[in-house]
Amino acid sequence: MSIRIGILGYGNLGRGVECAVKQNPDMEVAAVFTRRNPEDIKILTEGAAVCNIKDVSEWKDKIDVMILCGGSATDLPKQSPEFAEMFNIVDSFDTHAKIPQHFANVDEAAKKGGNVAIISVGWDPGMFSLNRMYASAILPEGKDYTFWGKGVSQGHSDAIRRIDGVRNAKQYTIPVEAALEAVRNGENPELTTRQKHLRECFVVLEDGADAARVENEIKTMPNYFADYDTTVHFISEEELEANHSGIPHGGFVLRSGKTGWNGENSHLIEYSLKLDSNPEFTSCVIAAYARAAYRLSKEGQSGCKTVFDIAPAYLSAKDGAQLRAEML
Amino acid sequence: MSIRIGILGYGNLGRGVECAVKQNPDMEVAAVFTRRNPEDIKILTEGAAVCNIKDVSEWKDKIDVMILCGGSATDLPKQSPEFAEMFNIVDSFDTHAKIPQHFANVDEAAKKGGNVAIISVGWDPGMFSLNRMYASAILPEGKDYTFWGKGVSQGHSDAIRRIDGVRNAKQYTIPVEAALEAVRNGENPELTTRQKHLRECFVVLEDGADAARVENEIKTMPNYFADYDTTVHFISEEELEANHSGIPHGGFVLRSGKTGWNGENSHLIEYSLKLDSNPEFTSCVIAAYARAAYRLSKEGQSGCKTVFDIAPAYLSAKDGAQLRAEML
Repeated sequence: MSIRIGILGYGNLGRGVECAVKQNPDMEVAAVFTRRNPEDIKILTEGAAVCNIKDVSEWKDKIDVMILCGGSATDLPKQSPEFAEMFNIVDSFDTHAKIPQHFANVDEAAKKGGNVAIISVGWDPGMFSLNRMYASAILPEGKDYTFWGKGVSQGHSDAIRRIDGVRNAKQYTIPVEAALEAVRNGENPELTTRQKHLRECFVVLEDGADAARVENEIKTMPNYFADYDTTVHFISEEELEANHSGIPHGGFVLRSGKTGWNGENSHLIEYSLKLDSNPEFTSCVIAAYARAAYRLSKEGQSGCKTVFDIAPAYLSAKDGAQLRAEML
Repeated sequence: MSIRIGILGYGNLGRGVECAVKQNPDMEVAAVFTRRNPEDIKILTEGAAVCNIKDVSEWKDKIDVMILCGGSATDLPKQSPEFAEMFNIVDSFDTHAKIPQHFANVDEAAKKGGNVAIISVGWDPGMFSLNRMYASAILPEGKDYTFWGKGVSQGHSDAIRRIDGVRNAKQYTIPVEAALEAVRNGENPELTTRQKHLRECFVVLEDGADAARVENEIKTMPNYFADYDTTVHFISEEELEANHSGIPHGGFVLRSGKTGWNGENSHLIEYSLKLDSNPEFTSCVIAAYARAAYRLSKEGQSGCKTVFDIAPAYLSAKDGAQLRAEML
């Protein structure tokens, strides 16, 4: 029998999860839950239900893993503990600084409900975290670097859109090639914020807006842009639509370390992602961890877990003997 | 109390493990075991014993994890089951085709002895296997590629040395840049053996040996060189010593995959290693998995495991709360 997936929230991430489940023959989307009117939602999966979130308790025995597709700012801090009491869940909570508190809240609820909850699943936090952890365990005497991009930062794009006179905007975070090269060369550089990433902005102005003022407001915006070398391009709405409508992302995790009795040998571990669609890739990671949540729950486990706590084999549709024969 | 490590075999790998343990403050080398006369072996670790392998049973309660540093051809198939009955062990068995049989033999012995045995630890098999597995679980509709190098192949260097008239030789395996680029561009190429790797050989001839004949014998050698574009350089013993005495290696694991309802988005996952010393890096991976073997054994587990079966957190000296706060 397939693993029955529930999807809570049907934005970019929810749709991404729906597409990811389609690629995993041992899973099926049972239902999508929404705060909107279910009749207004058109999903892609034939035979799956669309329900209002207030009816979710009726699905307690018809969903194996509930995937929470809300945002980290306000949705997940509330939803993840609430739903972990009722279902096995996976979320993609990505406010790094608040993960310990989120973990504690979800752990208590999941244990109370006897469910498995896997939090902060995706690529950062997620696959990037895993690679930071593996690499630092392998090379204890070394230095970690994470670069993001080239990719769209939703937060930075939103910040530009809030400026008076801006109709629309898209911001790309771009790693500085020279910094990446210095790391790859084993130079173990100390890098400032400005030396690590560039910010490139594509901005559509309202009619009559003052371009020079807008550009200055962007470049001097504290936290978001002031500490970076920022480029601003003014373009038309048509150009934005034609060339900047995607949500690509990616990045690099590197660890440079020394071995030998006197640290005489250097080593570089590098992991990188180049993603056409940030939410669809995140969804694929989530789908694999949903399989793990299901299996761990079947084994009788409960409580909150992260990618650090899950043996890799739990993610794969293949069994242990297959994995050893084909992938080891 | 530290994790007490035993090292069985004191060649390049054994010395590498000794250096790796030095970098992990929660471990110590308790003893090195050898088939040679212990008095002929000079180790680096102060206070560690050097013993003959025949006295190993006296160490049953004084070693937490025994690391087997022998070869995969003849040593490990015999030693790993034998020692797994007595100790928690880690080995780096790397004959991919024989892993299922090795696993079965070691599993039986480890269960009989109530010990944890982790086999095929290193970078391939090992970290490369993990990355193949994670990436294929995340992107089920995709294609895997593994490239090795640039690095020294011991097997190919040995094969050249066996040719009449050759005094010494070093062979480098080199990935074909154009093939790597095609994979990175998402072209999903079907690559022949020749299209994936080059072989570059540095050969020292015996006095009076016929260079043209040696070059021809190398380039036409079945399995080792005939299917590759091979370059042969004749150099002096001094030059070989000066420029080719290291044992660097590395390589790339890539997965290129599609997501979206109709596979409209492309993604690339890439993991790469650039290693000054192949045995020292392998040793570092082994040391981290020795920590895992120790912890799993303390939890009461037993039997044979591979990198697929070990939750990442077991490798790290940091505890769960630290990992979540610092690395997630």
